[in-house]
Parts: sequence; structure tokens; C-alpha cells
Amino acid sequence: MTASTDDEDNLRHAEKAKKHKAVRDKMMAGKIGEKGLLIVHTGTGKGKTSAALGMVFRHIGHGMPVGVVHFTKSQKWDTGEAKLLSKFPELVTLHIMGEGFTWETQDRARDIAAARAGWERAKELIRDHRHRMVLLDELNIVLRYDYLPLDEVLAFLRDEKPADKHVVITGRNAKPELIELADLVTEMTLVKHPFRAGVKAQKGVEF
Amino acid sequence: MTASTDDEDNLRHAEKAKKHKAVRDKMMAGKIGEKGLLIVHTGTGKGKTSAALGMVFRHIGHGMPVGVVHFTKSQKWDTGEAKLLSKFPELVTLHIMGEGFTWETQDRARDIAAARAGWERAKELIRDHRHRMVLLDELNIVLRYDYLPLDEVLAFLRDEKPADKHVVITGRNAKPELIELADLVTEMTLVKHPFRAGVKAQKGVEF
Repeated sequence: MTASTDDEDNLRHAEKAKKHKAVRDKMMAGKIGEKGLLIVHTGTGKGKTSAALGMVFRHIGHGMPVGVVHFTKSQKWDTGEAKLLSKFPELVTLHIMGEGFTWETQDRARDIAAARAGWERAKELIRDHRHRMVLLDELNIVLRYDYLPLDEVLAFLRDEKPADKHVVITGRNAKPELIELADLVTEMTLVKHPFRAGVKAQKGVEF
Repeated sequence: MTASTDDEDNLRHAEKAKKHKAVRDKMMAGKIGEKGLLIVHTGTGKGKTSAALGMVFRHIGHGMPVGVVHFTKSQKWDTGEAKLLSKFPELVTLHIMGEGFTWETQDRARDIAAARAGWERAKELIRDHRHRMVLLDELNIVLRYDYLPLDEVLAFLRDEKPADKHVVITGRNAKPELIELADLVTEMTLVKHPFRAGVKAQKGVEF
């Protein structure tokens, strides 16, 4: 190892940074432009819904209308996101399935009916040209339990989603066919979780 | 495969759901309570900052004050999150480092000074009892480039973070020592990315 002065350090850094910027600028210049994306957040880690909400709130910040369908949350849930979304009625259309988690209802026929109602609403929101982004929160759970026919959902997203519309789908166990169809897929992987250490779900963090 | 009636399907489902609920209820009953968490979002996938913003906006929805320090964003960035955060001045304290990404500035000494200023502000926000959550966006990048001494950051988070405060740190390449100290760590893994297919960063999705 050779000794070097701060000046030398700074010079080396500037050269490295210049190269980095050149590569990045070239990459960005090659982009063809905007496109409505089919985005999937899956995996067993935390952050799937939170990251989707982050994008929803970015849209709201830009004044761009969004639609949100929660497929597994009960209407009674007094969540931070529901409270904040409700402050922007001119930008947000929100549909909450209203039956809570499927393991709370213990009634398959009712779950299927609720999933169907949510999906019909989702299609309306996606077709509605006012919305730039539509979030289908926990749709993967609904698909995993076969509460909706996968083929029907895939066909709609492939053939009827407007080209400029972002659709975000969250939930663990995303179907491989959905991942295949998607433009952008992130898997959230659990590295460490405080529930294991006896900490309960907390306001602002989980809801 | 044996044929079964809808009634049988529903009964089986109800039994399974009951078991699932019992396991879940037992798990939740064992939780000891609330605790300020050190949360890390890392990995090369998308959603690290978005998921952190989702939690920040949940806090805002609940009327709980938050602090945000962006370590790599320029003041000039006209982001959706900055626009939305600015609508809640009574709940949000926002500090943006103001120099843009390090590969844009190409000046190591200036980067270090900006990182130091951001960190001093971060410590104030974390110590301030009004804030329930403080987001240190892209702090991992700053630590990776050795713009701040890792030991100093770890010591502060371990010894001086108030017990009821959530601190969220984002950015790829989180230091192993930080992961070790954290309560909740999620790795965002890239499965598929549209930049590869020539689509550029879009308003509301990336910023």
C-alpha cells in the first residue's frame, strides 16, 4: 500500500465519478420513453404494500389520479394509508373488499364473491383513463387461493390494460405466469424480522 | 382425483381457515408490545425508498410527526414525495443534502461535507422526541463510500436512538455491521427491470 495525499484521493475520485456518469448518461439516453408498466411486488419479506403505497403517494404528490383496490383488508381497518388517501378525494378512488383476511372470514363462497367484486372494480379503475396508476393490493393472495380465474386476470392485463397505465400487484407467491407477463418484478426477501423477537405489528410501520 | 361438491369444498376451506386463524391469533398474542425499530431496506431491486416512504406516509396518515433526510438527492429534484411531504409542514421535517448523486458532483471533499451535514441533521431529528419515525434515505450509499465513519453511525444508533423511535435506513450494499444491529431487514431483489428493456425512469414510479 502506498501513501497518497488528499489531493490525489480527490483526483482519483473525480476520474472514477466522471466514468460512472458517462456510463449512466449513455444508458439513460438510450431509453425509449414512457410506458405503462405491470409491476409485481412479491416474496415473503416486508415492504410489498409499503413500496406500492410509496409509488401511489408519489403520484398523488404529482397531482396524478390513482385507483386502489385492497383485496384482503377489511373496511374497518383504520390504517394510516386509508386516512392519508382520504385526504385527496379528487385524486384517489379507493375500494376495500370489506371482509378482512380470508382466514378471518372462514367462508370460501363469501371470499370468492368479495374477490369477484374487487376484480370487477379493478377492471373499471384500470379502464378509466383518468388514473395513471392502479394498485391491486394482495391480488396475489386471491389468485393463490383460486378465488379468481388466473387466465381471466392475465388476459385482461395483457389485452385490455391501456398502454400508458401502471398497474401494481402485491402479495406473496405471485403466479409464475404473472411474473412472466410483468415488466418490473421485485422480490422482497426477509433477512430479519422483529415479530420473531416478540414485537407486535405497530401503527405507522405495518398499517 | 375425487369429485366433491361445493359444500364439501366450503367445509374443508372453513376448517383450514380456522386452523390458520388459531395459529395466527396465538402468534399475535405472544407479542410483547411496541418498540422503536431500526429498519434497513437494502438489495439491488427496486422499492427500498418507496417502501420507506410508504411507512412515512402511514405515519403522516396517523398524524404522527416524521423526519426525512435524503442523503443523495438534490434540492432541485421535483419529486412526488417532496411535493406530498411539503403539504404537511406540521408533521414533516425534511432535509435534502442538496448536491445530487455523488457521481454528478465529482468532488469527494464536497460529498463528505454534505454527508456530514446530513448526518448532523439526522442526529437532531432522531433525538427530537416529537418524531416517531426518521427516514435516512440512501445512508447506505454514504457509508459505502466511507463519507461517514461507520463506527460513529453505529454507536449513535445503538446508544443514543430513543427506545420508542423508528429509524429507517435505505440503500444497496448495507454494511454487515448495520444489518447485525438492525431489528428488521428486507432485501429487495431484482427479478425483472424495464430499464433493461429501454424504458426510462418515470414520474410517480421512480420519483
